[in-house]
Amino acid sequence: MTTVLKLGGSVVTEKESPETVDEAALARAAAAIGEFDGDMVVVHGGGSFGHHAAADRGVSSTDGTRNAADAVAIHDAMGRLNTAVVDALHEEGVDALPVRPLSVASRGADGALTIPTESVAAMLAEGFTPVLHGDVVTQAGAGVTITSGDDLVVSLARGLGVDRVGLCSTVPGVFDAEGAVIPRIERFADVADAVGESDATDVTGGMAAKVEKLLGLSAPALVFGPDDLSAFLAGETPGTVVAGAE
Amino acid sequence: MTTVLKLGGSVVTEKESPETVDEAALARAAAAIGEFDGDMVVVHGGGSFGHHAAADRGVSSTDGTRNAADAVAIHDAMGRLNTAVVDALHEEGVDALPVRPLSVASRGADGALTIPTESVAAMLAEGFTPVLHGDVVTQAGAGVTITSGDDLVVSLARGLGVDRVGLCSTVPGVFDAEGAVIPRIERFADVADAVGESDATDVTGGMAAKVEKLLGLSAPALVFGPDDLSAFLAGETPGTVVAGAE
Repeated sequence: MTTVLKLGGSVVTEKESPETVDEAALARAAAAIGEFDGDMVVVHGGGSFGHHAAADRGVSSTDGTRNAADAVAIHDAMGRLNTAVVDALHEEGVDALPVRPLSVASRGADGALTIPTESVAAMLAEGFTPVLHGDVVTQAGAGVTITSGDDLVVSLARGLGVDRVGLCSTVPGVFDAEGAVIPRIERFADVADAVGESDATDVTGGMAAKVEKLLGLSAPALVFGPDDLSAFLAGETPGTVVAGAE
Repeated sequence: MTTVLKLGGSVVTEKESPETVDEAALARAAAAIGEFDGDMVVVHGGGSFGHHAAADRGVSSTDGTRNAADAVAIHDAMGRLNTAVVDALHEEGVDALPVRPLSVASRGADGALTIPTESVAAMLAEGFTPVLHGDVVTQAGAGVTITSGDDLVVSLARGLGVDRVGLCSTVPGVFDAEGAVIPRIERFADVADAVGESDATDVTGGMAAKVEKLLGLSAPALVFGPDDLSAFLAGETPGTVVAGAE
């Protein structure tokens, strides 16, 4: 029973202030994870660490750079947040180990992400909790580009064959057109109008894209807010369940 | 034409002082690499960063730890040296990117090292210079153990199919029983007596083991000192050539 948990960048950082951890929120999330009994991979977003560093250098998921110093500056900013997350997990008795996507992942010319999972699987087998993050990753033909935490979650869920995926962001689930949380999504067409609308203002980077990616997984994916993290980890189904109809 | 270059930990750090870079030696090595025309992977040893951190925590290539905080402390020490090497290479116009072995590699229960090479190959294809280092790596049944720069060199040389391997350490080559540099080694038996003797005092961690591993490669491997780095990079054959008879 392996779970992949994404902690949104906006959950663990203060988005307005560059490179500022939301210590209280991070400590709460770490405490909840400390109570979890099972194998877990944690992926966190960039929040006020990665987004500022990338934007300052004109690097995005589609606009790459061949300037290694710029790439390393973005990577190091994310590394500082990763250290904060790993340390917070250690405080709660979680045997967290950092896994830096730049070191292990790569993207094809079409942006498709490849993550060999041997190292992450080995950590899980030895009782460790790998902690990855949105990062710069080498992309064929583009130098390095940004790979989001969401993309890493989807790729890891496939590569590891995980049982359950959780995306903890600042919203309590996927909203319908009236602003109510949709309990279950099985087809993108059913929610396209609602999530399409939410796209422009969604601080987590596009709910429509997120839902579409999660529908491609064989494991169920839950989208929920920070208050529901413990419930998710206890096996409950808070927020929105994104489950392909298959 | 891809080259793997190992910079010994004793070449780029002051071994007696914990976490002290030999700035002048590192700058010279970086300048030599800056003159190189071709694809290169750099691997550096632990020197006074990794060895102290690992010894303080009782972790070695055979004695592992399941304490994640200890593992991260050793990994972070090596990360500080890696940052110094990457920065020095940037100063010389080399588009260096860090690759952290803990993130990508793993070891079997017998210690055999696995490094998926997609990320490193992608960096090379995009014109970057990946920079790896001796590190803690997850080992089946042992938590994390230390993987040496030499082991990484051998594994990368195999996985990438490189053309040439260079090991720049503090000695000018492999010594024979009289203390003269052996120009060429094709079989371990021919040098077993000599390298066996040098083992105890060899600061780079065992010349016998190094030669034996290098003989298993299809690419020629050169063992030379810092003064010969430029000659090696210019295509000359300083020091000792370790070339299996095949």
